[in-house]
Amino acid sequence: MDATLSEGVVRAGRQAREQFYDARGYGRPDGEDLLLAPVEAAHLLYRGDLDAIDGMGFRAFLGAAACPALRFLVYKDLRDRGFYLSPAREDWVSDPSGADLVVYPRGSGPWDDEVAHRVRVVSERAMVAATELDGIVLAVVDEESEIAYLDTDRPDVTGATDYDPPADVPADLLADRVLVWTPPADLYRQAFYGQPLSGDGVDEDIETLQLSLVEAAYLVRTGVLAVEGGESAVLDRGHEVEGERFDRRLRVYTTLRDRGVVPKTGYKFGADFRTYADVESVDALSHSELLVRVLPPDHAFAPRDLALDVRLAGGVRKRMVFALTGANGEIDWLSVSRLTP
Amino acid sequence: MDATLSEGVVRAGRQAREQFYDARGYGRPDGEDLLLAPVEAAHLLYRGDLDAIDGMGFRAFLGAAACPALRFLVYKDLRDRGFYLSPAREDWVSDPSGADLVVYPRGSGPWDDEVAHRVRVVSERAMVAATELDGIVLAVVDEESEIAYLDTDRPDVTGATDYDPPADVPADLLADRVLVWTPPADLYRQAFYGQPLSGDGVDEDIETLQLSLVEAAYLVRTGVLAVEGGESAVLDRGHEVEGERFDRRLRVYTTLRDRGVVPKTGYKFGADFRTYADVESVDALSHSELLVRVLPPDHAFAPRDLALDVRLAGGVRKRMVFALTGANGEIDWLSVSRLTP
Repeated sequence: MDATLSEGVVRAGRQAREQFYDARGYGRPDGEDLLLAPVEAAHLLYRGDLDAIDGMGFRAFLGAAACPALRFLVYKDLRDRGFYLSPAREDWVSDPSGADLVVYPRGSGPWDDEVAHRVRVVSERAMVAATELDGIVLAVVDEESEIAYLDTDRPDVTGATDYDPPADVPADLLADRVLVWTPPADLYRQAFYGQPLSGDGVDEDIETLQLSLVEAAYLVRTGVLAVEGGESAVLDRGHEVEGERFDRRLRVYTTLRDRGVVPKTGYKFGADFRTYADVESVDALSHSELLVRVLPPDHAFAPRDLALDVRLAGGVRKRMVFALTGANGEIDWLSVSRLTP
Repeated sequence: MDATLSEGVVRAGRQAREQFYDARGYGRPDGEDLLLAPVEAAHLLYRGDLDAIDGMGFRAFLGAAACPALRFLVYKDLRDRGFYLSPAREDWVSDPSGADLVVYPRGSGPWDDEVAHRVRVVSERAMVAATELDGIVLAVVDEESEIAYLDTDRPDVTGATDYDPPADVPADLLADRVLVWTPPADLYRQAFYGQPLSGDGVDEDIETLQLSLVEAAYLVRTGVLAVEGGESAVLDRGHEVEGERFDRRLRVYTTLRDRGVVPKTGYKFGADFRTYADVESVDALSHSELLVRVLPPDHAFAPRDLALDVRLAGGVRKRMVFALTGANGEIDWLSVSRLTP
């Protein structure tokens, strides 16, 4: 069976319509004819269902750059997994924006209303703007043509940690951390602020509690801690060692604490914070649920960095969340996880 | 027991020499007296072995910045782990360069010759030049004062893969990859070049083999592959999509292949390559041993990025290796791994 390519669309006859659209969800009907996007036509050529398009076989059709190679690879992979899918062309699908392919639930097709995944195809070398990742599935094609799928979401980050804090606990600012001498034990034990200099802080009194600058800045601002020079002394030190990143991290820290979530350093996981949604006491601590990386809102991801973050988070059974922190103080939360379609 | 601080050294008397140096490896004898580095004096104050230095107790001594807080934390941690150690001061240890602390093997002390670890103390916020990491143990203190140790080494990267390649296999350059149509099966099966477009490439013929640009550039240069436009066509495409990073990656790829090591993409691990030291056939592939990240030789690491790489590599039981690739073509290999002293 043959077909012709014109203005970026492949046209085939009535038989193609019955065989490819009605039976297997390729293309869009146009009267008695069938219109196929190049990626669909390439797949039919590859399978031998179409013999030629304007005389071109599969190799020539791909080589003529009529069809983006990456999109073909992802289209083929999703078909191999048993899905029907459509190119996200204007007029072909209801919401094409941001997507390259629209995947239907198993057993459904273009004649149904449901959509399982809206897929964007990118090379591992492309940069992907964080703002474009809302409910999109990224299909990243690596340099050896393997495909990994990343699901994106805007999660609701809240917790249930409750703590009635003391006031005006004296503390010393020391280089890039803060020390509290003989602190109220619950500051650590119940609310999980800081880290005792020695011991586990549970079975014995805490002689010295070490706080990070971001913990200290929050506690000074909320009146719990008293440091010489006040809040601005802590903020100044924070800017000194981290620049404007300190403000962004403090904003995320504050939002999390205000929502009942306990953030602790995510350093060991290469992140800004790991978080606990519900802390009652540090000796009955549950697994931390999220890894949070703080980013400016105009951040663009290299897919390789995303792969690294998401893989590590998966390996320690946590969810990778990015906190996109605007200058106005607003935070957009973006979660990214591996998907096996 | 008291002591005095002068010009960055704490001086104590004969009794201190017996009690602290002879019995527990603190300081250096000076005639009948004992000289203590501030970090050692701080530790003795912290333990209550010294009462005061010029009237200062532990809190005042730390606060006076007589002793860097981070160095104290690491010194204390290593003492807690049962090690004797010395500050790496000129004249105190034989090779102080690049180190802050010299740690003796368990059971040994400053009066012995052996050294277990040369330790450099850094904040998680410091940048660490790759060139300074040769046989040094990095003690990274995170913002919450937890300490993680990273061991560095210059590994010998070699393999035993052997393959007698064909010549002049025709291939098509297509966007940022290369396709070989009905290739000699051993190109994939035995030498593990590329990725079949369909099937596992083992039990059936390979119709289409997909190569990365870096694989293709190597194979064209060595005469195995023939592409329209020759080597320069592949190199041009590589520069187009990756800039000068392509040259660095190709240099590392070439060196690995020339040494009998098979590099494949490390994308899923956020690295440039994963490597197999000895491939006989892809259907009997062993576990890949290294994750390789290619970097310019003047690279400085953020400890957080190092932590992420090393943690991920550890999680998948691979060794993290950095290939520092100079303009002259020379490659310095640097391995970094977690250490529990």
